[in-house]
Amino acid sequence: MDLHKLDTYAKSLIKEAAYNIKTSLSSELIIESKSEANDLVTNIDKETEQFFIRHIKADFAEHRIFGEEGFGDDIKDLNGYVWLLDPIDGTTNFIHQKQNFAISLGIFKDGVGILGYIYNVMEDSLLSGSLNGGAYLDDLRLPKLSSASVEEAVVGVNARWVVPNRYVHYEGMVKLLQTVRGTRSLGSAAIEISYVVTGRLDAYMSMRLSPWDIAGGLVIAKEVGAIATNLAFEHLDLLDADSFIVSKPGLHEELLKDYIQLK
Amino acid sequence: MDLHKLDTYAKSLIKEAAYNIKTSLSSELIIESKSEANDLVTNIDKETEQFFIRHIKADFAEHRIFGEEGFGDDIKDLNGYVWLLDPIDGTTNFIHQKQNFAISLGIFKDGVGILGYIYNVMEDSLLSGSLNGGAYLDDLRLPKLSSASVEEAVVGVNARWVVPNRYVHYEGMVKLLQTVRGTRSLGSAAIEISYVVTGRLDAYMSMRLSPWDIAGGLVIAKEVGAIATNLAFEHLDLLDADSFIVSKPGLHEELLKDYIQLK
Repeated sequence: MDLHKLDTYAKSLIKEAAYNIKTSLSSELIIESKSEANDLVTNIDKETEQFFIRHIKADFAEHRIFGEEGFGDDIKDLNGYVWLLDPIDGTTNFIHQKQNFAISLGIFKDGVGILGYIYNVMEDSLLSGSLNGGAYLDDLRLPKLSSASVEEAVVGVNARWVVPNRYVHYEGMVKLLQTVRGTRSLGSAAIEISYVVTGRLDAYMSMRLSPWDIAGGLVIAKEVGAIATNLAFEHLDLLDADSFIVSKPGLHEELLKDYIQLK
Repeated sequence: MDLHKLDTYAKSLIKEAAYNIKTSLSSELIIESKSEANDLVTNIDKETEQFFIRHIKADFAEHRIFGEEGFGDDIKDLNGYVWLLDPIDGTTNFIHQKQNFAISLGIFKDGVGILGYIYNVMEDSLLSGSLNGGAYLDDLRLPKLSSASVEEAVVGVNARWVVPNRYVHYEGMVKLLQTVRGTRSLGSAAIEISYVVTGRLDAYMSMRLSPWDIAGGLVIAKEVGAIATNLAFEHLDLLDADSFIVSKPGLHEELLKDYIQLK
């Protein structure tokens, strides 16, 4: 498979899907809850995933799709080509703000990320990366990230992880909060990863993300020298939910060592 | 004083100041700390405030300026015309992200807000409002806000207010966090107020803001039916720092009654 050809194809699908999403903003959304009351999904999340699957299956019959809305394949391994897709990452923002949401897509071959995309739909800005090919914000090549100190870091972290919760000891998170320059929370993992990759945040973490939330970002992060692992400093599980951190190098180790203690 | 003429004049100053800020992004910033290590100011914050003052003093000799960087007047009352200005609201974002910062300006006459502006510099979007004249996002008139339930609310609140702090009992904030649909933190009070006014957030609160952070937003908020008070449900102090909440009507009362208890 020619990587450049696959890249062009994926970008064209993303742009067409985004056009459809934008058009849908003038119609009434159908909103449902999934696993719990605030885990929302709309008809547009579903239609967008189905749009990708329809095209990919027609053009690459042997490729499999691991999508948030479950219309793709039943994925138990990453053999061959697998597209990990979140059709709308930041669905709550999509519903409430009509902005600050992204299409997140990673294409993996035998478990290795070869192409990654985060498309901020309303900003019309495409972040992309390819294995050993660098990372780009639209046509602009992104520089490698340098390190940052914890004291001068601005970190993406949701407030729910600094209060008592089932995943992480909150005392360390409070200490982190009291040490860093500031925290931000934007409501879309893909957009927060894109902020780290472009140097607008120094790190971003979450106690619970799914493979499709991070797959695209992983490919891009690697190309700019950002470090992405789970919060136990292990390789990320791309078949199931896992904790997550992406960070500037150096800062990554310090955050995990001194502040984050999983339960 | 003709309100329309003053409005045109203020908008033109804001646009010129923004142009200068954008131009400055290609030069190296001079960054200093103010009251504490993470309270940052740059040469561009200072130059922008001085730009406003120079023009206002030349064109409206009797008007006074209450600015974040302290180059304006020593304001002890709001008699006559007072311009409350934050030349760059979200200085940390300005430094780290080169986006998500705003020029925030409110013009008050004898203590009454008559004109308000929040200009998201990098988005090039101007939110404006005039007393009894409605609120606009660029040329688009904003609709009145309707209420929202706490359970379906997305609330702007920084993580530092949900952990033990000197201003608010954090237990209520934790309860709030566990009740609402989600929280966001964007790092600029003016931009978070603009999100409430345009319906992208249902409420935004902070335990400590200064008059120039909120003055522009107050004028705009009133025009769309948003309620803005301090967290003791009193009129905001526009001469000194105060706690702050701006919210959809109904939701406002519920948040203050059931979740927020100041120390």
